[in-house]
Order: sequence, then C-alpha cells, then structure tokens
Amino acid sequence: MLRFMSAGESHGECMVAIIEGLPAGLYIDENIINQDLFRRQQGYGRGGRMQIERDTVKIITGLKAKKTLGSPITLMIKNKDFKINELPAITQPRPGHADLSGAIKYGFSDMRCVLERASARETVVRVAAGAIAKIFLNEFGVKFSSKVISVGGEKNSKKIKDKIDFARNKKDTLGGIFEVEIINVPAGLGSYVHYDRRLDARLALALMSIPAIKAVEFGMGFEAANKLGSQVHDQISYSPKKGFYRMTNNAGGLEGGMSNAETIIARCGMKPIATLGNPLKTIDLKTKKPVRASVQRSDISAVQAAGIIGEAMSALVIADAFMERFGNDQMGRIKKTFKIK
Amino acid sequence: MLRFMSAGESHGECMVAIIEGLPAGLYIDENIINQDLFRRQQGYGRGGRMQIERDTVKIITGLKAKKTLGSPITLMIKNKDFKINELPAITQPRPGHADLSGAIKYGFSDMRCVLERASARETVVRVAAGAIAKIFLNEFGVKFSSKVISVGGEKNSKKIKDKIDFARNKKDTLGGIFEVEIINVPAGLGSYVHYDRRLDARLALALMSIPAIKAVEFGMGFEAANKLGSQVHDQISYSPKKGFYRMTNNAGGLEGGMSNAETIIARCGMKPIATLGNPLKTIDLKTKKPVRASVQRSDISAVQAAGIIGEAMSALVIADAFMERFGNDQMGRIKKTFKIK
Amino acid sequence: MLRFMSAGESHGECMVAIIEGLPAGLYIDENIINQDLFRRQQGYGRGGRMQIERDTVKIITGLKAKKTLGSPITLMIKNKDFKINELPAITQPRPGHADLSGAIKYGFSDMRCVLERASARETVVRVAAGAIAKIFLNEFGVKFSSKVISVGGEKNSKKIKDKIDFARNKKDTLGGIFEVEIINVPAGLGSYVHYDRRLDARLALALMSIPAIKAVEFGMGFEAANKLGSQVHDQISYSPKKGFYRMTNNAGGLEGGMSNAETIIARCGMKPIATLGNPLKTIDLKTKKPVRASVQRSDISAVQAAGIIGEAMSALVIADAFMERFGNDQMGRIKKTFKIK
Amino acid sequence: MLRFMSAGESHGECMVAIIEGLPAGLYIDENIINQDLFRRQQGYGRGGRMQIERDTVKIITGLKAKKTLGSPITLMIKNKDFKINELPAITQPRPGHADLSGAIKYGFSDMRCVLERASARETVVRVAAGAIAKIFLNEFGVKFSSKVISVGGEKNSKKIKDKIDFARNKKDTLGGIFEVEIINVPAGLGSYVHYDRRLDARLALALMSIPAIKAVEFGMGFEAANKLGSQVHDQISYSPKKGFYRMTNNAGGLEGGMSNAETIIARCGMKPIATLGNPLKTIDLKTKKPVRASVQRSDISAVQAAGIIGEAMSALVIADAFMERFGNDQMGRIKKTFKIK
Repeated sequence: MLRFMSAGESHGECMVAIIEGLPAGLYIDENIINQDLFRRQQGYGRGGRMQIERDTVKIITGLKAKKTLGSPITLMIKNKDFKINELPAITQPRPGHADLSGAIKYGFSDMRCVLERASARETVVRVAAGAIAKIFLNEFGVKFSSKVISVGGEKNSKKIKDKIDFARNKKDTLGGIFEVEIINVPAGLGSYVHYDRRLDARLALALMSIPAIKAVEFGMGFEAANKLGSQVHDQISYSPKKGFYRMTNNAGGLEGGMSNAETIIARCGMKPIATLGNPLKTIDLKTKKPVRASVQRSDISAVQAAGIIGEAMSALVIADAFMERFGNDQMGRIKKTFKIK
Repeated sequence: MLRFMSAGESHGECMVAIIEGLPAGLYIDENIINQDLFRRQQGYGRGGRMQIERDTVKIITGLKAKKTLGSPITLMIKNKDFKINELPAITQPRPGHADLSGAIKYGFSDMRCVLERASARETVVRVAAGAIAKIFLNEFGVKFSSKVISVGGEKNSKKIKDKIDFARNKKDTLGGIFEVEIINVPAGLGSYVHYDRRLDARLALALMSIPAIKAVEFGMGFEAANKLGSQVHDQISYSPKKGFYRMTNNAGGLEGGMSNAETIIARCGMKPIATLGNPLKTIDLKTKKPVRASVQRSDISAVQAAGIIGEAMSALVIADAFMERFGNDQMGRIKKTFKIK
Repeated sequence: MLRFMSAGESHGECMVAIIEGLPAGLYIDENIINQDLFRRQQGYGRGGRMQIERDTVKIITGLKAKKTLGSPITLMIKNKDFKINELPAITQPRPGHADLSGAIKYGFSDMRCVLERASARETVVRVAAGAIAKIFLNEFGVKFSSKVISVGGEKNSKKIKDKIDFARNKKDTLGGIFEVEIINVPAGLGSYVHYDRRLDARLALALMSIPAIKAVEFGMGFEAANKLGSQVHDQISYSPKKGFYRMTNNAGGLEGGMSNAETIIARCGMKPIATLGNPLKTIDLKTKKPVRASVQRSDISAVQAAGIIGEAMSALVIADAFMERFGNDQMGRIKKTFKIK
Repeated sequence: MLRFMSAGESHGECMVAIIEGLPAGLYIDENIINQDLFRRQQGYGRGGRMQIERDTVKIITGLKAKKTLGSPITLMIKNKDFKINELPAITQPRPGHADLSGAIKYGFSDMRCVLERASARETVVRVAAGAIAKIFLNEFGVKFSSKVISVGGEKNSKKIKDKIDFARNKKDTLGGIFEVEIINVPAGLGSYVHYDRRLDARLALALMSIPAIKAVEFGMGFEAANKLGSQVHDQISYSPKKGFYRMTNNAGGLEGGMSNAETIIARCGMKPIATLGNPLKTIDLKTKKPVRASVQRSDISAVQAAGIIGEAMSALVIADAFMERFGNDQMGRIKKTFKIK
C-alpha cells in the first residue's frame, strides 16, 4: 500500500507531503523532482506567482545517502510569500471556487481560511511526490509524459497563444484539455475483482482530484460511445518477440479495470481558471448584498502545468498498483519478482 | 465511514454485497430495491440473460422488523443459471474484456475464471446496495435519477432503436452516454482539504468503476475546456428564502471538491458491449494461433441500465460523504444534526 | 490488502463473511473450515446453543471447482434459530455487555437490537474466514494452534472442570487465558516504518476485537516488565542450516514490529461470560428502576473456543502481512516469490 | 476519519507528522504540545539523548492565527544530531531490536538503515500529534493522564530508583508497567457492529504499536480471567443527576467494544530497553561469526515516557471515534451535536 498525504497553505510557510510505502534501496535524485517542479511552473498564460521564483524540493526524511530506507519520505517546498496571518479577510466568494461551500462547511466568516488550502499551490507537492513514484517506476521502464491537446478550444501553439492573449485582454481566463501517456506498464495492474481495485477507477479519482478538472476519459473516451463495438475494441495479436499485443489502442491501455500492457492514455478537461481579472457577480457573505468577487493574483490558463500534475497523480496510482503485484519491501526483491513469468 | 463490498460470479450461486456503516433506525422497503433491480434490467437492446427472470433481493442480515440495526447489511440476489463448475473452458480472449489481462494477472489457462467475475452481472448488487443508500438519503430529500443522452451517437428514442436494430443485424454492439442527476444535496459534502476527500474525485472513482465506462464528466465537463471563464463559472446570488444559490449550474453542483447545493450532474461515456455476435480477431491462449473470440450471450447495448448503476454508485458515495458531515449512529440524531445551522 | 467483512445477527437467518484479496489458484477444502467450526463449539462449560447442532460453512462465491478465483469469497453459516423478528423486547441491560452503551449509541429502546449483533455468535464467521487464511498460509508451512492456559485461575483439566462445575452451581461464569502459537512465519512480516504497519499492533487489534478479551500479550508479555534486559532479550545465533535464529523466544516471535522467524506466541485474557444465570443488578431502561439483568441462554465458560477464534483472527493478520511481502495475485507467483533470497 | 502519518529518522534532520481530519476552528496552543514533549523527556533512568536539549514543536501547516483550518496539520520537531549520512555502518544486530529482521526485510547490509527509523525517537511526533488530539478532546471535557505502575517489578519511587541504579551499574536495562486513564469519555464511542470498529481493539493497536510494548490490558485485564463473573462485571445504577453509571469499573470503561462513560483504564507492559551497555551475544551479519551487539546511546528505563506516548496514541484513537459520533467539520457544529440527547 502506497500512501500519500499532503499539507500546506498557499501563503503558509511551506507545502509538505509524506509518501509512505515505497521500497528500500531506491536512489532518489532531487534534480529529477526539481525538473518536474520546473515543468509545473511553465506554460504560456501563467502569471503572478509562477514568476516569483523556482520551486525546489527538500527531502527531510526517509533517505540515507540519497537512498530510500523503506520509511516515510517527507517532501518540503518553501513558499516564497509566507504571510498567511497578515492577509486581510475575504467576504466575497469567487464563483467557480471552493470559497462559498468551504465557508459553509467549516463555519468560516473569512474565506481566506478556505482559499489558502483550496489553492492550486497545493499541487506542487503532488508533483514532487509523483516524481518520486516516477523514479521508482522508471526502474522498470515505465515512463510518463503529457501534452496539451487544446486551450480554449484551440489546438495549435500559435492559436493557443492568441487565445490566451485575447483572454488576458478581456481580463478573462481559459481552460483546456491535456493528455497523459504512460508507456511500458506491465499487464495486470489493478483488477476487476472488486470495484475499488480497478486501475481505471483509481486513475479517475487521482485525475479528477486535480483542481479545476471536470472531465476524465481513457483511450477513445466519450468518442467510443458513438461507435460500433467492431470499431472500438482492440483486436488481439501475438508475436514471439512482443508476446500478446493489441492491433489498436482505443482502450487507452485499460481493459477490465486492468492495464493491458499497451500505452495508458488519459485525457482530462480543465475548466477555465476561476479567478478572473474582471470579477464575476457574487454575494458578500456578511452583508448578503450583491458585489463583485474578490480578485487574487492568478494565471490566465494553466493547462500545461495541469498535465504535469496529471502525470504525478497517475504515477502515484500506477506505483501503488505495481507494488501490489510485484511487492514493496526492497528494490532487489521487486526486480527479481518482476521477472517471474 | 460507509463500506461496501461485493462478491459473486456470473454463473455462481448468487451475488452478494455487504454494506457496513449505515445508521440504526432506517426503514428498508425491499420493494424499492427491487424496483431499481427491475430498472437495471430494462432498455431496448438487452438480450439473453435479462429476459430470463426478474432479479429480487433478499436481505439476510442487518435488519430487525425491516429496520436497520447499525450492523452490516447483507444483500443476496440469486443467479438463475448456477453452473459455474460445469461450463467449458475458454481459451480465446475477447477484445475489450478483462479476459487476457486477467489470465496473465491471475495465472489462468481457462479464461472462464476471469469472465465469471468480470461480468456485468456483478453490478446487480451494486444497484441493490445503492438503492439502500438512496433510501437513506431520501430521508433528507436527496433524490437520484438518470437518463440516456445518446446511444451509438443517436439522441432520440426512434433513432436509438433503429441504431440498435442496425447493430443487432450486423451482430455488432453499441455504447452511449448517460447522465445522473442528484437533487437536494446539501452544500459542503466532500472537501478540498485533501485530494482523496474531494467529492468529485470520489464520484469519478465510483462511476469509472462501472464496467465499460471510459469517460466521466461533471456539469459542463469537457465543453468547459473550450470556453472563457466568464462563460463557465456560475455567478452567485442570494434570496432570503433560498439562501445562496448559483444563477447557472455549469459546475454540475461541484465546486472545490464539494457539493455546492445545486443539482449534481454527472455524465458517463460507455463503450460498446465487448461481446460481439460477430466475434473479433484474437489469439488462442494455448495455441498462440489467430482465432475468433469466444461468444457469450450478451446485450447489444445497455446504456439505460448503466445509468441505473451510475445512480447506485453515486448514492454510495454521497451517503458516505453525507454521514461524514452529519454523523452515522442513528437516524434520530442525524435528523437533528442535519438541522443545525 | 486482505479485507474481511462480517455480518449477521444471532437469531437472524445466517452469519456471513466476505474475504477479499486472496490470490487465485488456492484449493479450498470446506472440511478444513468445518473442522475449525467444530473446534469452536467444543470445550467443557459450553451450554445451550452449542449443543443445538453443528455449524457448517457454505461457500457461495469466489470459487470454481473449489479453487479460488482471486475474487471475493463469501462464507455463509446458517443460524438454527431464525426468529429475530419474533423475540420479545429487552429493557434490562446486562452488566458486562454492549447492551446499555449500544442502546445509547444507536438510540434503541429494545436492547434486543444490540445483543443480536453483539453476540459471540458473530465469531463463527471469523473462524471460517480465518480457516481460509490458514489454508493459504499452510501452503508455505505456517501453522496455527491454540491452548487453554487457565480457566478461572485453574491450570489443569481436572481443576478447570471442577471450577466450571462450581460456577455452574453458583449460576455464575468464568473466563480464562488462552495462547495462540504460530510456527514457520518468515522473518520480516509487518514493519517498524509506520506504527500501523507493525505486526504486533495489528495482531493486538485482531485479538482484542474478540468479544470478552480484556488483555493481550506477546511472548513473555507483562512478565518482561519485571526483569532485566539481559534476562529478556533473545540472543542471536547462526547455523548454516537454520540461518539466523534466537537462543530463546521471550519476544514471542515479534521484534521491532516484525516477525523474526521464531514462533509467534500471543496470550489473551478473557473475562467471564457476561450473561449470568444468577443475574446482576441493573436498571430498567424504561422505568429507570433497579432490576435484575435479562437472562439469555449462555455458556459458563468458553476459553477453549476463544482460542480457536484467536487463531482465526491471527491468521487473517498474518495472511495480510504475508501477501504484502510476497504478493497476492496467484499461488504460482507467490510460491516463486517466496523462494527469492 | 482522523489520519495520522509520521516520518523521520533518529539522526535525520527532523521528525514530522501530518494529522488530517481535525475540525476547523480549534485553537492550538503550542505550549501545551511542548509541555507533553517535555513530559516525554522526563523520568529517572533516561540517558544520553534526553539530556541534549528540549524538544519543541513547530507547526508548519494547517493553522491561521493559531486556529485549525480543517486542513492537514504538519508538526515538525528538529533533531539535534543531524548526521545520518556520516554515521558508520552497523553489522552486529542488537537482540530485542528491529535490526536483524529489518535487514532481512529491506535487504540492508548496514543496519543503521533500520535503527534510524526503528528508534524510539520516532515517538516524539506521536506525542505532539496526540497533544493536538487532546486539545480537541479537552473542549469536551475528555482528559488524559498516565502513571508508572512499576519498573523492573518495583512499585514505589524509592525502590524504582534503586532498581534503576542497580541496572545502570550492571550496564543492564529495565522495563515496567504504566497505566493510562481517560476521563469523561461519552458513552458509545466505537462499536460492536464490526470487529475493526471496536474501541478496545483500536486502542490495543495504538498502544501495542509503541516500541517495546509487549502487553496491553483494559480495566481488570488478565486478572479478570481468574475470577467469577459476579466478581468482575460492573453492575449498573442510575441517578437523575449522573444518569446511568456503573457501581465499579472493572471493565476499564470499555464494554462491548464501546466506551461506557466510565474512566477508560489501559495498562501496558514494556520490556526492558533493548540496547544494553553490556551488550548481548549476536552474529555479525557479514561474517556470520558470533560477536557482541552494537552499543547505541540509550536509556536504562523509560516507562514514564512511554506512559506519555500511551496517552498520545490513545488520544488519537479517542478523537477519531469521537468525531465518528459527533462529526468533524467545525468546532461550532460539533459542540451543538455533542449536546443532542
């Protein structure tokens, strides 16, 4: 069982994660984690915070001489802007955010208490934790990538930039679609035997848990709903060298709740950033009068970054399912077990 | 914590589920469960098994005089066709099914051992368990419905029927899209404070775990990725009678990983049934030679039924999140707690 | 992850358990389960119910040709006395039982609603589920036994019988101490890396969860608290044949939260049966007047039976920890993994 | 659900814990936590590390103006001795420690990799996390204390000191017995409805997970196994002012797996510290030759400190069970819910 817990507020001292359940004997190069943290800060349309300074991870537990001990790993990333206790109260909930429901749930009159945790800042430690899961899986050839499919409905770089400029001028925001690809996943991760063991279901939770994600699909996704079975299902072939393989990959590497050894393909739909420069109509929590939403420093669009978070969340799920199948005590044993036919 | 475990094979003696964590003092009318079991068996395009006989639930633990005791509830639904030990071996894996990856994972040479559990028959107890969650939530006004949005890309009854007839003639199959609606969910179920507490993420797991589901979206879903923030986010209003409410519901009732008191709207994309009358190409597991997939009795399409399963899985998640907020010992206490402002 | 859920009321239709997470390909002989069910019914001092008829298990899901499929296994054991809906209400809570606190927690005026589930009858499916865990572990040489250490403070058969006869005449009851021994457990099950991974802690939960158990200790247990370190800690030796071993086993096979390959020894203290023929003072729930507790058919003592339950609960924990280390998909793979040095 | 995860190595940079699931709106005074950290460092017989410097907690996430936000709380306690990467390898496993089994499990040749995490240093963040659980429960009158019952079999201060001096001179070590008392726990926490919901079982896991604990008992504990039912079970009385109460408290506040509103009494047996100044016989992991165990700086006895850890672990369990019954979103709501009859 791989457990991952995250903590931290946007303007608190730092963001923290503990990952528990990784095997002993895995070499962790912090540069690889920092590379993903850098990738998370990129993309046209980012603003404000992203430019302040580069995030870097500090690993404060779980390693000796850069190797995992099997004990819980704590990741810490400093916030540049530690002033949570000085910031003014917010009483105008922003549409599209956790602000209002969070205030109702937790009994806050100041919605600063919501948005400090409901901030996308939280995803920085997800990326760091996911990078460690990737380092583990990389030892077995499993690799992750992501790409932007569209932003605001536009599908190529030039048009995407223009659309983002257009939105910026309008003091508006954009969402988009990204895709995560995972190669060399062995067959048989996850299972059909119980609904919560299904790999597709667990990936769906992980991906839908990324702030602003409103849609998740695998392989052909919604499009499969419009076609005949004969146009969708991936016929099976065999070669002595490759073993069993599919002639197509409409399933996106997932059949029967399991990996089928083809590339796992997940696509996520992200709604536009919910903090608009030109703020939306809302109600003041205290006065109950119509007002404009509070404006926080924000991006115009962050689809590329969300893709990196998608990789990270997927990596945590795949690593967990991988260890269910191949064990989790030590790298040496897992490598031997991995080779058993 | 509401726990739900299911068991049973397609041609085994019966399907079973245990639900643990419901409060004491809830009256359970089995007819309401049976109604949902009946709804699950309906829909144009169903074949074979659905016509054999109506499913009915038997509750064998957890009740006294039809009221819950707070103890685990066991649901049992008989299979009409108990012959798991007599059925011939299957060595031709069906594309689109768990067959091949299941055989690799569990070391089976006979894929009967996979498909008996990977069968959609398993969902019958999910519907029964979900019906109990609905009975609980109904006490607080929370209600579930579902509808078919499209089948094979067609969007009205006449065209859907024609498309299904067309597929049947071709010995082919169809999928489609269904929508689940949940009304009167109070604000603040789920949370943004930790990724696995998010209601949208938990619903995504539950819905994606339904066999053949390849895509899940909430509210405007993927379409939100193509629009401006000002076109997507639901502005907030207030009236003394309704309290806070949204002027639109593009978020599908889910913001910041929580219910926001608007109708929860989930849409799922279902791939075509994977068992085709005109079977697809595959490889015999034993001979490694190309063959045609095994043909099991099956439906042409089952989107309407999948919608009922979607209601059930959603209900289990909502009930769990509801009890996190309002307690879970006894109906009397929960009703009082529910009224606290 | 091995999950085990139980259900059923004392005078309901049946007792049920689902075990989820066992590997595929394990042969299950129901006779072995029934043997443990028989053992659970034995022991001098048993009364009433135990004599009615022998319990036998029916496995209704999870097997094909008596072999596990990797899917959840459902165990069912009929109750002989199905009359839960006809039994009269109970309003005099029995001291030592769940009656009063259960009524407060769940809001019952009739404590029948408590004792139907709080009954020791529930342990019958624990024994059945544990027997399956034992069958699994037996494939790797791990074996369980238990014995009565004392009853009512007496330590040999003759005196124990006399003491039980004495208590019966007094319409009183007795408890006692039993010991569970587990041999051939490989080193390194459980872990010190996180408190809830410790094998001793998980065994403590499992054993303390048996009704009437008030004390659990491993190896030298409480006695170790009275000695010097040099008298307690088991010095380590080595022989080419046996590998590392301890010269003594005061630790009861558990060091640092892990198995150390020595025999695991757990001892449990059981309080006297809480239903006395000569009932204790209590208060009527309705009238708030002093009365005598309700009298239910009961045993004088059941320490031997509790030992069998102790074996079962331990087996579920050990099997879970075993699969964490050696995998859980299929017997074939696990046997190969088990041999990796 | 209250989740608690800890991390950190003895000579790493720091110890860390994340607590997730506490309500919003709870004022956290760090002094109260530090007080428990101080208490953990006390007791005659402590040596080496305890004298270096006082532990103090730093709360780095989850608070705004010292009040909980409902988000995960991260606790950090610096180690004074950060040199994990410089310390020499250890190849002589200490009897009574995790050393040998840990090396086998995780594949280490240097047992430094085991003992850094298997160290009692880890309990410092348990105490800090438990202090937060206590602060929460204190709002409802629930209070924790602990006391030393015996050390090395001696039961009064003078004799205990003498015994510790004796052991120190012998370069030997001692264990002992401590008791945790919890007052004002409301009735009905935990439950008999499922084995893993039982409060006694969950407390047993928490207490047995403390390093060196080999025995746990509640109320009369093992002694109850020697008596008649009429001598053990606590008869029930009632007064309009107190409501229902027990005339005695042999059950230690726990009946039927639930709190019964009487004082919860848990007693734990601790084996002697496993690091002896006069080291025990063992085998060198590399040479397989008999040697003496490695000597690490250590205490002679630490029973008093273990009692503080026992309070902490109990508090985490009680807080979890408390919130199951009374909710967990915000202090305001919980206080209202707590008053519902």
